[in-house]
Amino acid sequence: MSGTLYGVGLGPGDPELLTVKAVRVLQAVPVVSFFAKAGRRGNARAILDGWLTPVQTEEPLYYPVTTEIPVGEDAYTEALRGFYAEAAERLAAHLSAGRDVALASEGDPLFYGSFMHLYVRLRDRFPTQIIPGVPSMAGCWAAAGLPMTWGDDTLTILAGTQPQSDLTAKLQTSEAAVIMKVGRNLPKIRAALADAGRLAAAVYVARGTMAGQEVCPLTAKTDDTAPYFSLVLVPGNGRRP
Amino acid sequence: MSGTLYGVGLGPGDPELLTVKAVRVLQAVPVVSFFAKAGRRGNARAILDGWLTPVQTEEPLYYPVTTEIPVGEDAYTEALRGFYAEAAERLAAHLSAGRDVALASEGDPLFYGSFMHLYVRLRDRFPTQIIPGVPSMAGCWAAAGLPMTWGDDTLTILAGTQPQSDLTAKLQTSEAAVIMKVGRNLPKIRAALADAGRLAAAVYVARGTMAGQEVCPLTAKTDDTAPYFSLVLVPGNGRRP
Ligand SMILES: C[S@@+](CC[C@H](N)C(=O)[O-])C[C@H]1O[C@@H](n2cnc3c(N)ncnc32)[C@H](O)[C@@H]1O
Ligand SMILES: C[S@@+](CC[C@H](N)C(=O)[O-])C[C@H]1O[C@@H](n2cnc3c(N)ncnc32)[C@H](O)[C@@H]1O
Repeated sequence: MSGTLYGVGLGPGDPELLTVKAVRVLQAVPVVSFFAKAGRRGNARAILDGWLTPVQTEEPLYYPVTTEIPVGEDAYTEALRGFYAEAAERLAAHLSAGRDVALASEGDPLFYGSFMHLYVRLRDRFPTQIIPGVPSMAGCWAAAGLPMTWGDDTLTILAGTQPQSDLTAKLQTSEAAVIMKVGRNLPKIRAALADAGRLAAAVYVARGTMAGQEVCPLTAKTDDTAPYFSLVLVPGNGRRP
Repeated sequence: MSGTLYGVGLGPGDPELLTVKAVRVLQAVPVVSFFAKAGRRGNARAILDGWLTPVQTEEPLYYPVTTEIPVGEDAYTEALRGFYAEAAERLAAHLSAGRDVALASEGDPLFYGSFMHLYVRLRDRFPTQIIPGVPSMAGCWAAAGLPMTWGDDTLTILAGTQPQSDLTAKLQTSEAAVIMKVGRNLPKIRAALADAGRLAAAVYVARGTMAGQEVCPLTAKTDDTAPYFSLVLVPGNGRRP
């Protein structure tokens, strides 16, 4: 009998924002796996800290150092492909031996998550089950106390890595928006919001629900430095009786 | 000292998909409130069932019967406005007396939630705190085992109540999409998906993570009847090393 691969959402950062089901599965499985940057403990492991029990085997998956290779180049894709293939085989070894594996994923596992790269490689070989999590954006709009979508509002979720003209066009046709993957894209994101006439409404959230959380109107942020864990929210304004 | 108003996300339906924090707050407050249709116990109350303790006061908020008045008419808006104002005063009475109130909300409270209508009426008068929840769409794509967004994919969240031409236009410019509020809008949603060339990829999920869950390709659904708790998912197809 093979083991089951669980994709477990960890939520936005606060360890209390795991679901009851996530905690139950994480504590029941013999093997808990998570992604981290080479040489780091990683944010997923930090969220898991209070929940794991000493008898569990940890299987950290360390990303290869790819910072010298620009994203989008073939060499970068190749390095990642090799890494995902190898990581999948590490988990497959446990699953083939009958051991259940929980692969923990920040936020929700099927929403821009690295989990998906192992899931598509393993789902035809082993039983799988997904435990959804609170996505980072929901943690961030809760931290900001910002009602996001009303009535028939459209909500568009964008990646700050998209070209500026795409961001502008999509911001123009949506009442509400979330821009993920901010980091070094912040100046471009500001420009797109300004072009779309939405800069004044935008709210910046860094490390939402984590230690060091920052929430402010984007116009009040005077520098262009944003950490990996940051996003921009543009609230909708639909039907309100 | 006034009490605090907590907006508590209940997740998509499975009671195990509440967060640890939601459970802690729901069990700590003296008053737990939730919306229901007049004459019904309601889905929020059903999710809460195993979590409440006998000493807590329940404050159900029953929607007025508005089924005879079409949505969008002034009389409908007026009826709802009166209901929300009155409901806010019922909670304000507890808060003024120093009692914390948890207002439970299906999915996430700030994402198309009725909670927001009371929140905007009470947040300037009382301390508030939001506990985010797993949105119904995340429960549904987990139930379907469907990776939704990859790499730089845009995800657009639409309401099935929007005009067909709007749905079509927005489906054409987004890699991934979620269409909420399906119900009697299903024929229109099918037509918009077909016009945008996305019908073959669409997945229908009814009562995701609840008893009676249904998941199937939308093209395999032969009738046009969809319950209130249903949505349509169109997965993205971005960068995959
Ligand atoms: C690879 S995506 C992972 C998304 C995750 N699966 C989810 O459900 O939110 C990483 C992006 O999520 C956002 N993010 C994740 N956690 C965050 C947090 N606590 N605060 C702000 N943004 C966060 C950032 O925009 C970051 O670039
Ligand atoms: C008023 S909105 C509430 C959304 C909620 N606050 C959330 O976070 O998902 C109601 C819509 O959510 C969707 N929905 C809620 N729960 C669902 C479930 N368990 N399965 C499928 N759709 C659901 C349906 O499309 C329904 O029309």
